[in-house]
Amino acid sequence: MRTTRVACCQLAPVMGESAANRAATLAAIESAAEAGARIVVLPELPVSGYVFADPAEALALAEPVDGPSVTAWAEAAARHDVVVVGGLCEAAPDGTLRNSAVLLDRSGLRAVYRKVHLWDAEKLFFTPGNAAPPVVDTPHGRIGVMVCYDLEFPEWVRKPALAGAELLCAPVNWPAEPRPEGEHPGEVVRVQADAMVNRLPIAVADRAGHERGVDWTGGSVIVDADGWPLVLVSEGTDATQILIADVDLTASRDKRISARNDVHADRRPWLY
Amino acid sequence: MRTTRVACCQLAPVMGESAANRAATLAAIESAAEAGARIVVLPELPVSGYVFADPAEALALAEPVDGPSVTAWAEAAARHDVVVVGGLCEAAPDGTLRNSAVLLDRSGLRAVYRKVHLWDAEKLFFTPGNAAPPVVDTPHGRIGVMVCYDLEFPEWVRKPALAGAELLCAPVNWPAEPRPEGEHPGEVVRVQADAMVNRLPIAVADRAGHERGVDWTGGSVIVDADGWPLVLVSEGTDATQILIADVDLTASRDKRISARNDVHADRRPWLY
Repeated sequence: MRTTRVACCQLAPVMGESAANRAATLAAIESAAEAGARIVVLPELPVSGYVFADPAEALALAEPVDGPSVTAWAEAAARHDVVVVGGLCEAAPDGTLRNSAVLLDRSGLRAVYRKVHLWDAEKLFFTPGNAAPPVVDTPHGRIGVMVCYDLEFPEWVRKPALAGAELLCAPVNWPAEPRPEGEHPGEVVRVQADAMVNRLPIAVADRAGHERGVDWTGGSVIVDADGWPLVLVSEGTDATQILIADVDLTASRDKRISARNDVHADRRPWLY
Repeated sequence: MRTTRVACCQLAPVMGESAANRAATLAAIESAAEAGARIVVLPELPVSGYVFADPAEALALAEPVDGPSVTAWAEAAARHDVVVVGGLCEAAPDGTLRNSAVLLDRSGLRAVYRKVHLWDAEKLFFTPGNAAPPVVDTPHGRIGVMVCYDLEFPEWVRKPALAGAELLCAPVNWPAEPRPEGEHPGEVVRVQADAMVNRLPIAVADRAGHERGVDWTGGSVIVDADGWPLVLVSEGTDATQILIADVDLTASRDKRISARNDVHADRRPWLY
């Protein structure tokens, strides 16, 4: 068993306030690192905001992967020797706009992932990705990355799990939905199941607050390889906060769940 | 909206007491029908019991699909005009032993499904099936069938969902596992997610009690197309009981979850 301290930073970006939003991400990385985190997850689109009025606004708030946000995160990752996974409204080299996530470690930018399953009005702004979630060997573990609605496609979560990810990091923006008393948000239930059927810990950084008529779930969570929450939002769903948990990243290497069962070896993909 | 009353009969069979166990299944079907249920789900292996000592014992307790249990269930289904889905320790025509489920309606036996993903010692007794879960148009809805551990493979649940099932019925025997305070059993969490990512209601009949050192979860549940429990076990996990809920079977026909999202149309299977 090797536990690694993981932080999910639930932030409340303000649409269009990129400089302040970027500063908030850097302050969160700093706080997480000071608390001993080795892996720091930021929300989806934490610098630009999410509820764009039109494609022009999204484009105006986009950055390339060598832009100010990723450059600043790379410096922070190097300074603190942490892995940073964060969302980016990406002005891609091919001229498209992407809802992306980047993974950085002390050596710099290691992976760019472009969200494959787009949510609602994102379809008006972003071009979906076509590449599998990256799985990166970092100094602090073998880490997979996907974004928000991607988590709701179990076939997609299988890919980094089968590729040997020890932890799946997911920047998200979960719009608030009603749910019955006593139940976790539906998005958390789906993350729990994603973890359980793969024995794969998952760290989710959600956003908080309200933006242009949208309330956010504020449902950041870190679940272990059994799918049980190690830490959940505790201070109200619209609070900004940093969730921290010590996650056993070695647990994901053992897919056995009984004397004769293994969640991956028991698959019969030729029938699917 | 068309609601249909569904009953999940949580029973506590006694190993080897086939006649009494069969009588208990018939009494449960009778009670469910009297309560207005049109679809009645029985547990996995409700007549034979589950924890076989060896293959010879399993074989001795097996029945063909024209044996006494299925014959009696067919009579009950016709008498009450109900759909019955129940587990069977099946002596198959090819000489193999199968962990099966049958679906019957007023016209008789409509489908036999042989469990594809075998749990633990089942691998010593049963030959796994190779056929997709049946999806049957019955007088009371279009119903899919699978068994227990099958539910833990989201790729498998996709098949009846994509084939237009309005309700997935699952006989199960869930061995009890520890879980954190306040959490549903892990099996229920996975069923909730199965329902959510497909907008497919699911009716699960678990067994109760204790058998040869195994405690059962007794976690029978009926979830709606949003994955929220309509009814959960309420009287303690080792109680026999009949769970009843009115399920909107038409909800499954609408896979939309936002103005621009559809849980099936949003899939990108060529990437999976």
